[in-house]
Amino acid sequence: MAAPMDYLPVALAAADAAAGAVRPYFRMGLQADDKADDSPVTLADRAAEQAMRAVLAEHCPEHGIIGEEFGETAGGQSGFTWVLDPIDGTRAFITGRTTFGTLIALLQDGVPVIGIIDQPITGERWVGVAGRPTEFTGPLGGKAGCRPCPTLGQAELSCTSPDIFTDETRPRFEGLRRAVRRTSWGGDCYGFGLLALGQIDLIVEDDLKPWDWAALVPVVTGAGGSVTDWTGAPLRLGCSGRVVALGDPSLLPAVMQHLS
Amino acid sequence: MAAPMDYLPVALAAADAAAGAVRPYFRMGLQADDKADDSPVTLADRAAEQAMRAVLAEHCPEHGIIGEEFGETAGGQSGFTWVLDPIDGTRAFITGRTTFGTLIALLQDGVPVIGIIDQPITGERWVGVAGRPTEFTGPLGGKAGCRPCPTLGQAELSCTSPDIFTDETRPRFEGLRRAVRRTSWGGDCYGFGLLALGQIDLIVEDDLKPWDWAALVPVVTGAGGSVTDWTGAPLRLGCSGRVVALGDPSLLPAVMQHLS
Repeated sequence: MAAPMDYLPVALAAADAAAGAVRPYFRMGLQADDKADDSPVTLADRAAEQAMRAVLAEHCPEHGIIGEEFGETAGGQSGFTWVLDPIDGTRAFITGRTTFGTLIALLQDGVPVIGIIDQPITGERWVGVAGRPTEFTGPLGGKAGCRPCPTLGQAELSCTSPDIFTDETRPRFEGLRRAVRRTSWGGDCYGFGLLALGQIDLIVEDDLKPWDWAALVPVVTGAGGSVTDWTGAPLRLGCSGRVVALGDPSLLPAVMQHLS
Repeated sequence: MAAPMDYLPVALAAADAAAGAVRPYFRMGLQADDKADDSPVTLADRAAEQAMRAVLAEHCPEHGIIGEEFGETAGGQSGFTWVLDPIDGTRAFITGRTTFGTLIALLQDGVPVIGIIDQPITGERWVGVAGRPTEFTGPLGGKAGCRPCPTLGQAELSCTSPDIFTDETRPRFEGLRRAVRRTSWGGDCYGFGLLALGQIDLIVEDDLKPWDWAALVPVVTGAGGSVTDWTGAPLRLGCSGRVVALGDPSLLPAVMQHLS
């Protein structure tokens, strides 16, 4: 039986392939009125997922695949499923920001065991493998490892957008927000990478899909943090998509007081 | 009488000096409980402004200086004033994001005639000089030039944070937001740089200080866009700090319908 680590080279090859497919479309001079179905972000999304699927088909034809763009490909009896998001952070990509990323996860029996956050433009890459310390490489500085944050009042909170919440969840988020030190907006997967570098203490997101969160779990966990749903339960396929990431897992009860 | 262009080499030298002062503090592993007065961002802010002031003192001792960190230094009768923001985007810097920037402007009789947006970590730099096309250099792609955007419904809107508005201004902003294609959050000066690359169509900010907006005017104008207050008037020292930037200046009447 193959161990998850055996597939790390395949995951890295998929990340390289996706980055090569995405780069030509970044800041390529799109028009304000591009139609959604042929916009640069859509073309980049599809090209990157196809590039990753080609790598996986070559090396792991017996594995399942769930991708944001091309749906689910059933695997055999291996128990392994790849979960792919070619461009997490569509708005960032569209506006020329480098905070989008390619997310690649390998799940074993539904549990994320490999996670990669790759930033194709800056060349930053976070690699998480279950049971091992997260590795971070890139030219902009920083090193992997979450920081301690013993109280909510000291916490830097990040969230992609105030627009993600519903009438039901917004008041809970607002309560949490009033309790933290400071809130910054924007970020998508890049925010989770920064949490794994000890730059952010707390991220709250709503309505994430499996391809949005699967890769984040090994990256954040391997840096000393935690990723759960808003009740503190581990994320699994079929979960609510309400995600809370903590650089210091001891903050979880205080966060849940607001969110649950 | 010296022309503004004569001072461009000084402005570029100041940007280089600030970048050298800022870089050592980025993602340096700050603690969640750092006190404000000795936090890395505060140290970087002060070091960068001192580095810029040293360049200006050497080359233009007769000019005035207004800096975010060290206040106002009166000039002689030259009519020239430098306006400096060593780190625009404190929250971005603190959380390890590269969307902060150093802003350097030269004002002649109160009108911005040189503007630089410099990103010390990615190495991107926008240089605007009154009456000349904006120049953009950097390793991440993109080229200077705003894009056409004939209707609000096509516009990509960007704003640093939903928290900047007052009870009076928030409803006006929300009306505008409902009329545009899409809104993204976060950005500080970097958003204006992206507007000057044709990636964003519209930016609205409230309560900006002179060091926040002075450098943006030549950069955006030289790329074909416009920067005004919410009534469409040019920005001047002592203005309201309510700023609207447009990649396509023909959108101004439609925007003012919401904001004014």
